[in-house]
Amino acid sequence: MAMKDLGDLLEHMLQDIYYAEKQIVKELPKMAEKADSAELRQAFESHLEETKGHVENLERAFEHLDIAKKGEKCEAIEGILKEAKQIMDEIDDPDTMDAGMIAAAQAVEHYEITRYGTIISWAKKLGHDEVAKLMQATLDQEYAADQKLTKLAESTLNQQAA
Amino acid sequence: MAMKDLGDLLEHMLQDIYYAEKQIVKELPKMAEKADSAELRQAFESHLEETKGHVENLERAFEHLDIAKKGEKCEAIEGILKEAKQIMDEIDDPDTMDAGMIAAAQAVEHYEITRYGTIISWAKKLGHDEVAKLMQATLDQEYAADQKLTKLAESTLNQQAA
Repeated sequence: MAMKDLGDLLEHMLQDIYYAEKQIVKELPKMAEKADSAELRQAFESHLEETKGHVENLERAFEHLDIAKKGEKCEAIEGILKEAKQIMDEIDDPDTMDAGMIAAAQAVEHYEITRYGTIISWAKKLGHDEVAKLMQATLDQEYAADQKLTKLAESTLNQQAA
Repeated sequence: MAMKDLGDLLEHMLQDIYYAEKQIVKELPKMAEKADSAELRQAFESHLEETKGHVENLERAFEHLDIAKKGEKCEAIEGILKEAKQIMDEIDDPDTMDAGMIAAAQAVEHYEITRYGTIISWAKKLGHDEVAKLMQATLDQEYAADQKLTKLAESTLNQQAA
């Protein structure tokens, strides 16, 4: 599809991150299952619930903007999750697995942080304040999830006989 | 390759981001060429020079750690750059192109920010302080580049008849 203005770009980006969030909903339970640390497992599980809320926030945004509630294949998240799977396939040691999965999850968070940042800035510019507000609520949770992962990384690394 | 401990993960991550940096060195000149705003073109050009320095910092890290100076295919950057190319192919309007390229470049920056953050934390844990220092110098430049892009996005959007 050709994108001729910022409105088209915003629509594209919303459908891109919608696809990404839905992929993340599929992957988080697998990561929770592989987590050795109970705290990390719980972090993945609670972020799964948040992520389902992010999908709903996007659906509300689609309604506000009267655009199709559909995902557009997001090559970036595909690549990021492919790397996560590689790491998970190639590690046996539980502590190393946790460290690798935290890194993978933080790459996912950073992708979402940059995309929602862009979406909020474009939505504001186009006067879609309600959409900007919904996406800001999601972004705040992504930041918090990333910070929680940084803290878990530190405690995981400290337990680890590196 | 199987990864059995944090040292293996660190090696993997360094080779992953080395591949990514080299891809970015190839893409930035194309983005600079497509930029409509002179300021954005200059930002891409000056970040290209910085990126060449990041490649050298990684080569120094490989020497310190006595590991192979080779890239490992980074699926994440492949996906992120594929999306950047899609955006660049599907936009004609110069202002919209600039907005789309800034978003794409920020996705690249965020990927690098998360990877270098992880690398620094693992390098410190393993006592590779010299490597941590080199990667911190790179990370500081990635943060600055991301902030510069945020400012450029605001001024680009303000000029734009959205």
